[in-house]
Amino acid sequence: MSVGQSIPRVDAWEKVSGRAKYTDDLVDRNALIGKILHSTIANGLVKKIDITGAEKIPGVVKIVTCFDAPDYPFPTAGHPWSTNPAHWDPMDRRLLNKRVRLYGDDIAAVITEDEVAASRALKAIKVEYEEYPVLLDPEEAMKDGAPLLHEECPNNILKHTTVEDGNFEEAIKEEGLLCFEGLYETPIVQHCHIETVVSWAYMENGRIVIVASTQIPHIVRRIVAQALGIPWGRVRIIKPYIGGGFGNKQDSLYEPLNAFLCTQVGGRLVKLELSREEVFFDTRVRHGERIRLKTWVRPNGRLVARSYTAFSNQGAYGSHGHGIAAKGTNVFRQLYRDEKARKVDIYTVYTNTAAAGAMRGYGTPQAVFAVESHMEDIARKLNMDPLEFRFLNVMPRGFTDAFTGNVNYFDSFHQCVEKGKACVKWDEKRALYKNQTGPVRRGIGMSLFWYNTAVWPISIEVSSCRMVMNQDGSVQVQLAETEIGQGADTVYTQMASETLGIPWQKIHVVSTQDTDITPFGTGAYGSRQTYVGGAAVHKAASLLREKIIRRASEYVHVSPANLDILDDGIVNTSLGNRKLATLEELATDAFYHEENAEHLTAETTAQVKSNAFSLGCAFAEVEVDIPLGKIKLLKLVNCHDCGRLINPKTAEGQVHGGQSMAIGFGMFERLIYDPKTGKLLNDNLLDYKLPTILDHPRLEAEFVENPEPTSAYGTKALGEPPTVPGAAAIRNAVLNATGVGINRIPLTPHVLFEEFRAAGLI
Amino acid sequence: MSVGQSIPRVDAWEKVSGRAKYTDDLVDRNALIGKILHSTIANGLVKKIDITGAEKIPGVVKIVTCFDAPDYPFPTAGHPWSTNPAHWDPMDRRLLNKRVRLYGDDIAAVITEDEVAASRALKAIKVEYEEYPVLLDPEEAMKDGAPLLHEECPNNILKHTTVEDGNFEEAIKEEGLLCFEGLYETPIVQHCHIETVVSWAYMENGRIVIVASTQIPHIVRRIVAQALGIPWGRVRIIKPYIGGGFGNKQDSLYEPLNAFLCTQVGGRLVKLELSREEVFFDTRVRHGERIRLKTWVRPNGRLVARSYTAFSNQGAYGSHGHGIAAKGTNVFRQLYRDEKARKVDIYTVYTNTAAAGAMRGYGTPQAVFAVESHMEDIARKLNMDPLEFRFLNVMPRGFTDAFTGNVNYFDSFHQCVEKGKACVKWDEKRALYKNQTGPVRRGIGMSLFWYNTAVWPISIEVSSCRMVMNQDGSVQVQLAETEIGQGADTVYTQMASETLGIPWQKIHVVSTQDTDITPFGTGAYGSRQTYVGGAAVHKAASLLREKIIRRASEYVHVSPANLDILDDGIVNTSLGNRKLATLEELATDAFYHEENAEHLTAETTAQVKSNAFSLGCAFAEVEVDIPLGKIKLLKLVNCHDCGRLINPKTAEGQVHGGQSMAIGFGMFERLIYDPKTGKLLNDNLLDYKLPTILDHPRLEAEFVENPEPTSAYGTKALGEPPTVPGAAAIRNAVLNATGVGINRIPLTPHVLFEEFRAAGLI
Repeated sequence: MSVGQSIPRVDAWEKVSGRAKYTDDLVDRNALIGKILHSTIANGLVKKIDITGAEKIPGVVKIVTCFDAPDYPFPTAGHPWSTNPAHWDPMDRRLLNKRVRLYGDDIAAVITEDEVAASRALKAIKVEYEEYPVLLDPEEAMKDGAPLLHEECPNNILKHTTVEDGNFEEAIKEEGLLCFEGLYETPIVQHCHIETVVSWAYMENGRIVIVASTQIPHIVRRIVAQALGIPWGRVRIIKPYIGGGFGNKQDSLYEPLNAFLCTQVGGRLVKLELSREEVFFDTRVRHGERIRLKTWVRPNGRLVARSYTAFSNQGAYGSHGHGIAAKGTNVFRQLYRDEKARKVDIYTVYTNTAAAGAMRGYGTPQAVFAVESHMEDIARKLNMDPLEFRFLNVMPRGFTDAFTGNVNYFDSFHQCVEKGKACVKWDEKRALYKNQTGPVRRGIGMSLFWYNTAVWPISIEVSSCRMVMNQDGSVQVQLAETEIGQGADTVYTQMASETLGIPWQKIHVVSTQDTDITPFGTGAYGSRQTYVGGAAVHKAASLLREKIIRRASEYVHVSPANLDILDDGIVNTSLGNRKLATLEELATDAFYHEENAEHLTAETTAQVKSNAFSLGCAFAEVEVDIPLGKIKLLKLVNCHDCGRLINPKTAEGQVHGGQSMAIGFGMFERLIYDPKTGKLLNDNLLDYKLPTILDHPRLEAEFVENPEPTSAYGTKALGEPPTVPGAAAIRNAVLNATGVGINRIPLTPHVLFEEFRAAGLI
Repeated sequence: MSVGQSIPRVDAWEKVSGRAKYTDDLVDRNALIGKILHSTIANGLVKKIDITGAEKIPGVVKIVTCFDAPDYPFPTAGHPWSTNPAHWDPMDRRLLNKRVRLYGDDIAAVITEDEVAASRALKAIKVEYEEYPVLLDPEEAMKDGAPLLHEECPNNILKHTTVEDGNFEEAIKEEGLLCFEGLYETPIVQHCHIETVVSWAYMENGRIVIVASTQIPHIVRRIVAQALGIPWGRVRIIKPYIGGGFGNKQDSLYEPLNAFLCTQVGGRLVKLELSREEVFFDTRVRHGERIRLKTWVRPNGRLVARSYTAFSNQGAYGSHGHGIAAKGTNVFRQLYRDEKARKVDIYTVYTNTAAAGAMRGYGTPQAVFAVESHMEDIARKLNMDPLEFRFLNVMPRGFTDAFTGNVNYFDSFHQCVEKGKACVKWDEKRALYKNQTGPVRRGIGMSLFWYNTAVWPISIEVSSCRMVMNQDGSVQVQLAETEIGQGADTVYTQMASETLGIPWQKIHVVSTQDTDITPFGTGAYGSRQTYVGGAAVHKAASLLREKIIRRASEYVHVSPANLDILDDGIVNTSLGNRKLATLEELATDAFYHEENAEHLTAETTAQVKSNAFSLGCAFAEVEVDIPLGKIKLLKLVNCHDCGRLINPKTAEGQVHGGQSMAIGFGMFERLIYDPKTGKLLNDNLLDYKLPTILDHPRLEAEFVENPEPTSAYGTKALGEPPTVPGAAAIRNAVLNATGVGINRIPLTPHVLFEEFRAAGLI
């Protein structure tokens, strides 16, 4: 009844009033404090840890070191488990590490009565190391003789894959082809969610309970059990509201260690909260990638064959590993279609930087930056209109992905580009900015993007949902697809309202997940919430609806075939929707019927065996001050075909947030490591440059709504895609303004200065 | 797999280690404090309340008075709702009262930043009253001209009922009948649960959430909504572990006021915790009763006709009202069977004492005290053996209650008495104590009891249960039948284990109820937990079992007909229970199946349309110091046929607790009101004499196990019955020792002194 309306977020009042409870708000007054001792070398071995001095500090309850902790290697990536070991994520983490793989690795932990004691104890622990050379670059780490971070991975290569579509060598022999090449580099960036990584754990009835800020409670349960070597049912995860995740909390980061720590103090409650600095140097980051593209094209602009070679910096631990680089190659392989062949050669390589994991976009921002910079450059060199060149080669309507079965049902690219062009006055501006001179110039650029909703068939896609009716006809909805700030609870409310015929005000989504009681589902990632979670809501609501109609049939003595739920009541469809009873009357009767009382509930599992292309574009307009090496972003417009919009206002919010991350990725953010020690130099929000409000233009979101046929409510991915095209659009706008195509981001003054100088502009 | 075994309580570790969380342990650090202003008159009107001084006290956030609060009359009794108004409990409460009906009535409330401000604010509020005469005795209150406490009830009679079985007037005309008469009086006592009445409430997303120490979360939800005049689904009740209830928390006591208070401060969290004194004077108590029995009997001991007249002191508000006196009459009508007729005439009457409500035994301790004292006296006067006299008239095997349909399937009375006799060496002691003289004498006495499990058909009996399987084959169990210290979670664990074929260690009962997600059920009362809750567990476990077997059939390729779950695994029954898979393997496959993933859960409502006699006896041995008026209780043995024992050890614990309450009821406890002001004089645990360890003999519990045919696990009531027979058994032992039958309890030295003096013993 409310799908398509911009109803207020259901958690709006709680959140704006500061009343919503997050993990740390809920912690017990008497919590013990856990703190981690981090290594002060980036690569090496812990030889010895001396805790004798630290143990004597008042308030110290327990100290555990890498020599005491269980040694079960476990995965951290937030993917559904698979019964097929070939689909397992890398299992290379331990609770604490003797083998140090990054500056700041976890080698011991203290449990204390308070923060002061923890801080003193950490300082008093003495560590002896054996040091190895520091490896920060994948290609350096791959060299023979480089120390191996994980012995099972020769040349530090976590995984290397190649794909060839068509006969590549044959294809490039075609006469008259022009060949273009480009090397593109993207930075390591961090998610910078407002709430740092935090959890607290205690034991109850012989089981471990962890309250955690996570996107994936059911997966964290499994990982904690794996890390501790205990049955999975002995772990319970509770997830309150969370202050952002963006993929970092799609890893099980410190819940396993937190669980272990509480077992070391007899099950007492231990809180483990990371500082901002720790989040930076020792949680997850976006994979820095170096991508080499080579393209063979006919003079008329038709792509014939292309190759894609990438080195993806995995950092110290496996996390989501090769999946990120692999997803990027789908951008390459599907966004544009070569007439004859293409080939992919990608390496994911361990280094001594922070472990790279999932981050909003999951490898596609890197690939889109490379591909869309490259396409822009080729168009320019072919002297073609960049849009014309793109549309000559873009994935056509009707294209079907042989692996996933995805079909490109609509003409989303054209529709989105038309909207975007109108919005930025593309033709007018392109003409206007044609022949600029002088130190300050303006430009306009764009980028298409490709994204794929949810993760089938790489992982299973499953979501269960339970609905519970109250006496007043209102309904609770439970599912494991989590609210992480993106508005999931609100759209689930609208979806349930739609299918049940009950006003949204009477739908109460249970926001807190608790793995003991929340129906199984794998959480928030892969932009799967409306697509997979939506399927679960639809299935459960349909089941509850059926039960209500069946019960109503007995209550009002009308055939179920002639009944419907409309506007909170039971109506007779054969009598022009005449209202026969309110849902409140019906529900109360069901609860308290003397002969046939029944609590009207419905629970079911939805398995989704499809996914869906989520496509669109971004347009950026910039003003470049060439001597100062400064870009002023004047406009950023994204246009998305994400299917049907459940809530236009929250959809717009999703886009704005993604655009902001794209601005950071394209213009400001980068983790900087000391090349000698491997220490992260900008591990805080002063030195790490997130864009602020002053760096943002008015962000604009446009939509094309082609209801996705494979989706219960016609939706597809909108969570991650907004992050994807911005950097390339900005880069191409700078090219339009200055004639200089810059292939490494972020486009900081340092980079611009170097590039403009090399181009002879200054 | 564990039914019948004394497994340790599942909450034992948490509770003995002090780690279990109760309502107050969970309250937010920033809670506001709510405190109630109580009237300083017992009967009258509030004319005016002046809060101007109080409002100025620092820390006072808000003061509300009886002139501000909503005026929806609401019921407080913890019964299931009925769609038939004839079954509604008295609706005579308001959030705050202008019409004052007891000393300590609720007339205003303060909300403050801390306890000190609350205490100062209460003192600064000025109240003007109009006073009426104080009514403490039901028969006084019934007199014409007495002020009416509730205008709708003439003569302050809440309810008056009469029943006649057979033709009474005709029956007593029989020639040669002997007639005996007795007047019995029982005290007003209080439950004295360790945890006082406490709750805290706040608003979330426009709804009211209340965390409360209650036995009946789903019922409290309904009552709060009724009291505030809002839809029931807008209220959410969460019940953590509770520190005892014994029926007092089968009323919604202060959750409605707490809810209202939080709405008065914009939904901020307000805690409302009663002091021990407030619990005494202003929550619920056991109905004091005055019961007149008149019996016509043949000289051979056969009862021909009896009458039962009772006045039940309801106190100031309706609460459970007439139901208590009515349940007592079932003891009278069914424990013994007159050959021709019996008649009942009972009044429940408002007075200015604390409102009487549910308390363990629910009217049967009063009735059994009267009936079993009376029977003992008649036997004595007939010069018959008291057991022989009882068995001549007791409810026979095969007796069927025409109203409930209950059948007395077994010979429980004889079996229990035989066990009890052996245990106390009855025959030997009766002979030994025959002709004692001197100031200190010993005696032995006994009492039968009658109890009826659960409340059908007076209210509906319904319980829903949900089970959720984990990847390791362990299972969570959710139901609304609450753990209130009695061990419900433990026996549900055992029941689920039994039906599922899973070791009890892998069954996790979700102890906290949350009305948003806990399947509907009405809570802990009426000794219904194993009987009604057990039916729900059995039904849900059977459904889950069926789903597991169905899934297993596909997994191991064996017909469901040949599969069973045994010892945590799937076995082939046609091959001698050969194990084919573990439940862990099966569950993991179900969670992660690439084609057919499914979260194995089951949820269902069980409606129970029967109840069951729960019968037995108690034997007491005493030593009476006549001049000192002191009784030393040497032995107290209860013997119960409560059907099959799920957990013998926790069953024994139930009996011990009930025996202790019976000792208090029979020998120590009584609320004493100032006759002039109506003020409760002993509202604390120093002046109110609970029996302590020094007053207890070694308590003994014996059982006869006749599996109840109407019960899923063969169980019937054990929660309340242990409280019932003790007082009469002790009273009859004193009679045996001294020849003095005392008809008013508690048997304090004051009473004994008066009675022994009247009897000429001192």
